[in-house]
Amino acid sequence: RERAGPAKLLLLGYLSYIVAGWVGLSFGFAQAKPLSALDTLFTAVSAVSTTGLSTIDTGTSYTFAGQIVVLLLIQFGGIGYMTGSSFLFLSLRDHLSETQEKTAKTAYSLPDSITPALFIRSVILFTFACEAVGAAVLYPILETGGETRPLFSAIFHSVSAFCTAGFSLRSDSFAPYVADVPLNLTLSALSIIGAMGFIVVTDIVRRIAGKARHFAFATKVIARMTALLLVVGTLLIFLAEPSIAGMPAWERLQAAFFQAMSASTTVGFNTIDIGSVSRATIVVLLFLMFVGASPAGTGGGLKTTSFAALIGLVRSTLKGRNSVRFFKREVPPAQLQAATTSLACYCGALAVAVFLLGLSEPAAAFDKLVFEAVSAIGTVGLSMGLTSELSVIGKLVIIALMIVGRLGVLTFGLATAIPDESPDEEADNDLAV
Amino acid sequence: RERAGPAKLLLLGYLSYIVAGWVGLSFGFAQAKPLSALDTLFTAVSAVSTTGLSTIDTGTSYTFAGQIVVLLLIQFGGIGYMTGSSFLFLSLRDHLSETQEKTAKTAYSLPDSITPALFIRSVILFTFACEAVGAAVLYPILETGGETRPLFSAIFHSVSAFCTAGFSLRSDSFAPYVADVPLNLTLSALSIIGAMGFIVVTDIVRRIAGKARHFAFATKVIARMTALLLVVGTLLIFLAEPSIAGMPAWERLQAAFFQAMSASTTVGFNTIDIGSVSRATIVVLLFLMFVGASPAGTGGGLKTTSFAALIGLVRSTLKGRNSVRFFKREVPPAQLQAATTSLACYCGALAVAVFLLGLSEPAAAFDKLVFEAVSAIGTVGLSMGLTSELSVIGKLVIIALMIVGRLGVLTFGLATAIPDESPDEEADNDLAV
Ligand SMILES: [K+]
Ligand SMILES: [K+]
Repeated sequence: RERAGPAKLLLLGYLSYIVAGWVGLSFGFAQAKPLSALDTLFTAVSAVSTTGLSTIDTGTSYTFAGQIVVLLLIQFGGIGYMTGSSFLFLSLRDHLSETQEKTAKTAYSLPDSITPALFIRSVILFTFACEAVGAAVLYPILETGGETRPLFSAIFHSVSAFCTAGFSLRSDSFAPYVADVPLNLTLSALSIIGAMGFIVVTDIVRRIAGKARHFAFATKVIARMTALLLVVGTLLIFLAEPSIAGMPAWERLQAAFFQAMSASTTVGFNTIDIGSVSRATIVVLLFLMFVGASPAGTGGGLKTTSFAALIGLVRSTLKGRNSVRFFKREVPPAQLQAATTSLACYCGALAVAVFLLGLSEPAAAFDKLVFEAVSAIGTVGLSMGLTSELSVIGKLVIIALMIVGRLGVLTFGLATAIPDESPDEEADNDLAV
Repeated sequence: RERAGPAKLLLLGYLSYIVAGWVGLSFGFAQAKPLSALDTLFTAVSAVSTTGLSTIDTGTSYTFAGQIVVLLLIQFGGIGYMTGSSFLFLSLRDHLSETQEKTAKTAYSLPDSITPALFIRSVILFTFACEAVGAAVLYPILETGGETRPLFSAIFHSVSAFCTAGFSLRSDSFAPYVADVPLNLTLSALSIIGAMGFIVVTDIVRRIAGKARHFAFATKVIARMTALLLVVGTLLIFLAEPSIAGMPAWERLQAAFFQAMSASTTVGFNTIDIGSVSRATIVVLLFLMFVGASPAGTGGGLKTTSFAALIGLVRSTLKGRNSVRFFKREVPPAQLQAATTSLACYCGALAVAVFLLGLSEPAAAFDKLVFEAVSAIGTVGLSMGLTSELSVIGKLVIIALMIVGRLGVLTFGLATAIPDESPDEEADNDLAV
């Protein structure tokens, strides 16, 4: 109970950050045309939670100054989330290496001397470096594409991609760039790196550079699950989506990959029209958005590690085992509890949300409601076009889902990190959820 | 592993029973008009699994002889499921009373002398008694209502209600009887008793008659969860469904209750048109069908006890406890594992099914696909009208869901009943899932 403090502090911090953003966007200098208080609140929550859903067109509703406010909200929202979830992730890991010497060699091995301040500085440096490279690559592409402010657009979209925010200054996201290989690769690389997060990416880089002999166990799980979801998602959309069936094979593959990547990393950009995809594609996107990205990154969703734990659970039950294993390792009960709790809470929150949206949006089709709710709780930002048509109640429901979706995982993580009567049960945490 | 045998035997038994029914319905004397082999297979699976979905109209497609075959398939499917799940339920309970003397006083206390044969005979007697009373009450109502074969109709619908099969000889289910109190009460009582099952109902009767001093713990959980779902479901449909808003308050309440009862017990009758309910009502029905009925009864779904365990899980996680409690009792890890596995498998099977239905039924709306899939896996039988329009692939998908939905819970139950390396972990089973 003594560690429930940080969760409350975190919630308060997030809420005051949202209020600050709301105030910033409420000034006249931020608005290109008069905006309602609810719409600016929606933008503030969407930006801080790095969701990217928007009731109004960001590019034309806000002035240049307003767009800079949105950019700052995304940037600090993303960095704040990545450092917050990383600390949680590492605290589980430290706990591990103290109690279980056997597995210590495969746990994350940050130098003992590292301080929180130093760690945060590393994350910020890493973030800015990635975003700078991204902006540099995007600038000539967007300039050639005829954007009005190509440099700002390059910076904005690079930050938006790395923070998996999916906010775009373009009202059609990136539809005209569906066949542009450099743009697709840049946005995808930024989103995937942002969604995996600093710790995992540095672990991979250290291994490739020969500085580490093993991947940390969680890195293995995260890398394999990310690859699996991207490959399966791309294949299914490639085969099941009629609107891209007429494209040349390479372009079609690229469009399928970009959309699968967008849903899976929860960045939320699109190069095809989400409002007119087939029902089979909707199911694939819903699944990818629901599972979401990885812990210690900027993405949302249930998390790849929770999904891995659930697969392990199902397999163990069907094999008649009481202990749950994944990649030949036992998944600790506390983390399995967090994964199953997340799953149950997600299902419950979505049921309540879609029920309320059913009442508040009587004209909207069922698939649009479900898609909007899953996109909001997973902080993805893809939409079948419902966002701008939402009623007041509908906007409030989506705002609540974005906040719950962003804070949920951290709160559950903290909750399970609290030792109960039997602290020895938590001995072998290994797979963070 | 030595106890994996029964699960295979059960599966084989069910499949051969389905084949027998299929053969029976394939004869010319059973068909009022030529029926395809796929449609008769669909009927056989739907009847044996007591689902009630039908691609063809049972009342006009089958002859009187064919309808008797359907009746027999329902009757033995229902009794078979109730005895099978009851044995599983009791075996967990027996295990309990042997290992934990403290809780023995609240466990089910069947006399030690009872044999499987005697137990099955009791269940059959109980079933026939309930169905006879039901048919006797229904007969005058249906005769007044102008049914062509009122006696057979009374027997058929009484059996169909008690076995929570929801098959009807009427093409509009019970729409004209929406305001008929005796019919609503009779069908509801039969369905609720069937869905709770022999063990739970006798436990309640023994307590009321003063023959037992306590309810068994599982009876408490089942009775409270059943009541909770019925009350909440009725209220939500009462408030959220516009198509009944014009009715007099009492009739409206009755219609709301009947539909909530129908989804929750998974019987699947309807007195209002399911194809035209509002999106909010769809969510309520989906939720009730997903959670479903109770173990040791004839109903399907995730089961009320699993739902209770999941609520306990969420509450415990949010309170920072590692042990999961419900009604002040600890939920044993093995049963929590079964509940969470069921939830994960349900979500997975539904995602795959809706994806395939999206491909095979390009003309159908998303809500109809989701509704049909949830109804099939929960063996409910409510439909928004898609069943008769299904393509060949679509019919096969729904057939697979009905089989999986019926056998899933039993199989998981058996799987978790297999002792692994650490049999002492299973000491305190109490809440059957
Ligand atoms: K996003
Ligand atoms: K049924």
